[in-house]
Amino acid sequence: MGCIAEAEYHQSIDVYESIESHPIFKGLPKEVTATFAASARAQHYPKGKILFLQQDKAESFYIIATGWVKLFRETFDGDEAVIDVLNEGCIFGETAIFEDGIHHNSAQSIEDTMLLSLPLSLLKQQMIQSNELSMKMFGAMSRYRRLQDQELEHRDLQSAPQRIGCFLLRLCNQDQLGPITLHLPYDKSLIAARLGMKPETFSRALTRLRRETGIRINGSTVIMDGLSQLTSYSCSACSSTFPCEDIK
Amino acid sequence: MGCIAEAEYHQSIDVYESIESHPIFKGLPKEVTATFAASARAQHYPKGKILFLQQDKAESFYIIATGWVKLFRETFDGDEAVIDVLNEGCIFGETAIFEDGIHHNSAQSIEDTMLLSLPLSLLKQQMIQSNELSMKMFGAMSRYRRLQDQELEHRDLQSAPQRIGCFLLRLCNQDQLGPITLHLPYDKSLIAARLGMKPETFSRALTRLRRETGIRINGSTVIMDGLSQLTSYSCSACSSTFPCEDIK
Repeated sequence: MGCIAEAEYHQSIDVYESIESHPIFKGLPKEVTATFAASARAQHYPKGKILFLQQDKAESFYIIATGWVKLFRETFDGDEAVIDVLNEGCIFGETAIFEDGIHHNSAQSIEDTMLLSLPLSLLKQQMIQSNELSMKMFGAMSRYRRLQDQELEHRDLQSAPQRIGCFLLRLCNQDQLGPITLHLPYDKSLIAARLGMKPETFSRALTRLRRETGIRINGSTVIMDGLSQLTSYSCSACSSTFPCEDIK
Repeated sequence: MGCIAEAEYHQSIDVYESIESHPIFKGLPKEVTATFAASARAQHYPKGKILFLQQDKAESFYIIATGWVKLFRETFDGDEAVIDVLNEGCIFGETAIFEDGIHHNSAQSIEDTMLLSLPLSLLKQQMIQSNELSMKMFGAMSRYRRLQDQELEHRDLQSAPQRIGCFLLRLCNQDQLGPITLHLPYDKSLIAARLGMKPETFSRALTRLRRETGIRINGSTVIMDGLSQLTSYSCSACSSTFPCEDIK
C-alpha cells in the first residue's frame, strides 16, 4: 500500500499537536512523540476512496483526523461484510505488523476524510524500544476486542430494532438530560451494513423502532424525548449497564 | 476471582514444560519462563464449573492444558451469548489487566478441564519488563481480533448451513486427503450457541447441510468423502482462501 490520494491536505492541521494529544501517544516521552510526528503525513481523501485492499502489503497505519472510514472484507462471491466504521481519533491498519505485513481487510473513506499516515516500521521499532507504547497499544486492542465481543453478543441476542436503538444511543451524549436531536453520521444503507442487516431488514426494523419507542426520524435527523426512550428498549437485551461502560 | 475447584490435579503434568513450550512464552529468556512456571498452578475443573463471572475482580489468567472452556455474557433479560469456546493451548482472562482488573465476560468449563492459572499481576509486571513478551501478547491479540472480524463477516454473509460447514472444516486437518471422520467436540446445543443460532435454526441448517453436501452425521460423528465436500460449499461465501489462512 502506498499513498493513494496524492493531493496534500493544505488546511491547517497541527500534526505535532494531533499526535501528542492522541491517547496512544499521550504521556510518552517528548522524543518518542516527536519521532512519530516527524514521520506523520496528513492527507485528504475524498469520499469513496479505497485506502487499501485486503491482502495489500502494509506500509503505514492511520489515525483519522476528520471524517469516516469503513473497514470491510469481500468474499469470492463478491459480497461485502462491513467490519467496522471508524471516525475521528480511531487508529486502523496497525495490526498488520503482526500479520506478515499484510492488511487483512480493506479500507475506504466514506466521507471527506483527513488521515495521518505513519510508517508501520516506525511503530514496530518504537514498540520494541518503549514498553509504555506497547502497553498503550495492548490496552487499545483489549478495548477493541471487548467491543467486538459486544457486537457478537448483540447479533445473537438483540432484535434488529434493538440494535438500531443501540447504534443511536452510541451517537448520544450519555449524560444528556431532556430532548435530543441527532443526525445520522452516514448513509442508512451503510448503517444497515454496519449492523449486519440487509437494507429491507433495516427499513422494517426502523419502522418498528419508531412505532415501539416513539422516536421520530425525518431523513437523517432523529428526535427523542430523552435517552430513556431507547435505553429501556435496547439495553434490557444487553449484558452491559447504562451509561454504557462498553463504549466509555 | 479465586480458586474455584480446590481439588488439586494430581495427574502428571509438567508445568515447566507446558509453560516453556507455549507459543506465548516460547523463546523468552529462561528466567522469565521459570518465573511464570513457578507461579503457575495446575487445577482440574469438572464439566460445568463456573470459573469466573462477568464483573468479577480478575486476579488470574488461564491457559487450557486439556478440555474446553466457554466464554459468555448474560443480558439483564437472562439470555446468554456465547462469545467463544476455547480448547487446549488457548489463553483467557488476560485482557482484564487493561480493563480495570475486571473480567468482561464469564467463563465455564464445558468438559472436564485442566487449567494452568497464573497471576495477572505477574503478567503485567513481566510485560513491563520484557518487550518480547509484550510483542508476543500483542501478536496473539491481533490474531484473535482477525478471527473475530471473520466471525462477524460470517454472521453477515454465510448462510446457517455454510457456517456449520465452516465450523466442521476447522475441526479437520486441512492437509488431509481422502475420507475424513471427525467427532463433534461438544454438545450440538453449544455448537448452535457458539455459531449464534437458535437450536431449531441449527437443526434445520444441519439437515440442509447434509442434503446439499452429502456429508453424513450420526450422533456426534461426521463422515465426509473429502474436504472439498465442504470447502466448495462454505468457502465461496468467505473472504479467506482455503487452506484457511485465518485459522492457521
